[in-house]
Amino acid sequence: MAIFVLVHGAWHTGELMRPVADRMAAEGHEVHTPTLAGNRPGDPADVGLEEAIGSLVAFVDGHDLADIVLVGHSYGGMVITGAADRLRAGAIRRLVYWNAFVPNDGEALNDLVPDFFLAMFDEMAKTNGTVMMPFPIWREALTNDMSGADSAAAYARLVPQPYRTFTDRIALSRPPAAFEIPKSYINFTEDTGMPHAMPWHPRLSQKLGLFRLVQAPGSHEVCFSNPEGAARAILIAGRD
Amino acid sequence: MAIFVLVHGAWHTGELMRPVADRMAAEGHEVHTPTLAGNRPGDPADVGLEEAIGSLVAFVDGHDLADIVLVGHSYGGMVITGAADRLRAGAIRRLVYWNAFVPNDGEALNDLVPDFFLAMFDEMAKTNGTVMMPFPIWREALTNDMSGADSAAAYARLVPQPYRTFTDRIALSRPPAAFEIPKSYINFTEDTGMPHAMPWHPRLSQKLGLFRLVQAPGSHEVCFSNPEGAARAILIAGRD
Amino acid sequence: MAIFVLVHGAWHTGELMRPVADRMAAEGHEVHTPTLAGNRPGDPADVGLEEAIGSLVAFVDGHDLADIVLVGHSYGGMVITGAADRLRAGAIRRLVYWNAFVPNDGEALNDLVPDFFLAMFDEMAKTNGTVMMPFPIWREALTNDMSGADSAAAYARLVPQPYRTFTDRIALSRPPAAFEIPKSYINFTEDTGMPHAMPWHPRLSQKLGLFRLVQAPGSHEVCFSNPEGAARAILIAGRD
Repeated sequence: MAIFVLVHGAWHTGELMRPVADRMAAEGHEVHTPTLAGNRPGDPADVGLEEAIGSLVAFVDGHDLADIVLVGHSYGGMVITGAADRLRAGAIRRLVYWNAFVPNDGEALNDLVPDFFLAMFDEMAKTNGTVMMPFPIWREALTNDMSGADSAAAYARLVPQPYRTFTDRIALSRPPAAFEIPKSYINFTEDTGMPHAMPWHPRLSQKLGLFRLVQAPGSHEVCFSNPEGAARAILIAGRD
Repeated sequence: MAIFVLVHGAWHTGELMRPVADRMAAEGHEVHTPTLAGNRPGDPADVGLEEAIGSLVAFVDGHDLADIVLVGHSYGGMVITGAADRLRAGAIRRLVYWNAFVPNDGEALNDLVPDFFLAMFDEMAKTNGTVMMPFPIWREALTNDMSGADSAAAYARLVPQPYRTFTDRIALSRPPAAFEIPKSYINFTEDTGMPHAMPWHPRLSQKLGLFRLVQAPGSHEVCFSNPEGAARAILIAGRD
Repeated sequence: MAIFVLVHGAWHTGELMRPVADRMAAEGHEVHTPTLAGNRPGDPADVGLEEAIGSLVAFVDGHDLADIVLVGHSYGGMVITGAADRLRAGAIRRLVYWNAFVPNDGEALNDLVPDFFLAMFDEMAKTNGTVMMPFPIWREALTNDMSGADSAAAYARLVPQPYRTFTDRIALSRPPAAFEIPKSYINFTEDTGMPHAMPWHPRLSQKLGLFRLVQAPGSHEVCFSNPEGAARAILIAGRD
């Protein structure tokens, strides 16, 4: 049995990871689903990437967790990479990226997404510093394996994302390929959250150096559409 | 429940879509499978793309269909694109491309296929204006998920294709990416009908702009090899 | 019912193909699993590619086999290509490449793998002329669908590989695309044995010209992780 920490993506919260976590816990694993700084009720709109990373480090340290499998979904890949660089030796047993961003030193999430997202979010953030995924893109490109009703119900549970978590550049002492921690990359094969010319895998996965690939059918939002499938993929990606 | 119109590919007829349509109808949907001009018994060998498109428009108008999910397989993608540009507002609820060609204004099907197909079909069409898919290519590249006997039996049901439907350039008032109608693209992952350097997806799918991707295992000819799987993919692609 | 000859990859033996062969035999097929020269107990460390090919030709001829489906896994693709060029007409009914190398005349296996493998193996071979796949790469990139314990148990059954089988250039009278024998390519979709910029399929498969593609989920080592799935894929790839 292992200890897992599941780190949600942008617009998500730890609560939205629970259906996945519960299925993993049912097999005897200890599964934590913290909500990052910036995504908690009442968090200010100007929370930056470093605070989000710091909140994950504080969670792991505060709970005295060691030897964990640290899983990051989507934007969560930025945060687990930063945390892996900062956490004490022995804290992390394996890093698992789940259709997630993989940054090198000095890269922001916005350096890893297509130009049309930048233009859209830059405009959106002018209002109050947060951004939201527009529903038409959510429905067609991120929840393509869901019914319209389920897609809308999931959308209603999302929270605004402080834009600085996308624009801040990460500071890393080493590229993730040089981390000594073993790494896995989970790629859900119908995830069209990134455009086809800039796919999650292998574009981002190969920045990990040697890694274990796990693939399964599904969209970017299998945490809603297929939590059972997500749990199974994470367990295969996370085992020794 | 929705109204579907399934538009067959080259060398096929509406009858060959029935195994797929029947499974969709069994779930309560209304499913039409017209045969395009050029592919009906007795059609002249010089039927062109515009007549094929016109025959689909006439079918939809003649049956007073509205709010339909219009599905095009392979060459059928040329025809549904043309029909979507010509049909009245409200006729189409969603366009579904199924390992299908997606043209922009001025493109012919022959602009979207590899050179060796052009050379082969140009030569073949000299006899009487129609072309046929050679059996060795049909067997290995289009029915790779079928037994030899089933592949041969399916081949025996094909009809000659008027070559002008491949060489005529389509006239469109707008690129399909600018259609306001929502769009889906179904990609069967073992479809080797197009060579690997010129794949169906993402080469052609991305011409749709924002679209919903649905993938499933199978060859170009799942209408024969797996009508149940084809029906399921179409229902996921076609729902709201 | 057909006659199959399964040719193992580097570091493997015929015995390691038996779990796959047994499932095929259970359906009534005759399945041979020879061990190539270079991979048998007591073989000298300087066995070259030509001797490996010769040992397969001798096996087929010595057993008076005709009309066989000749299947090559990984490095076995080099060997079946050479044997197909040398065996008498009528010996082979179909060639099946299974995440396998496909050489043209004058190419060595080492011409088809990434530079970091060359550097690693060149160094390794200095000791005694043989090479071994390092366990960390085996575990993460080749057995990504296996548990750690199963991966280690499989690793313990591997044998050293004479390096000349990787560095020798093959001599062929024709490119495999010009062989008149029908060809299939099986691609297990999570096989990360080759890096993503130099994949098995379509990089190597397309050297076959017209071929039948069969895909299924799994790693490079489905002979261990999923012999049932390997058997099923081979039977689909090998049928007429």
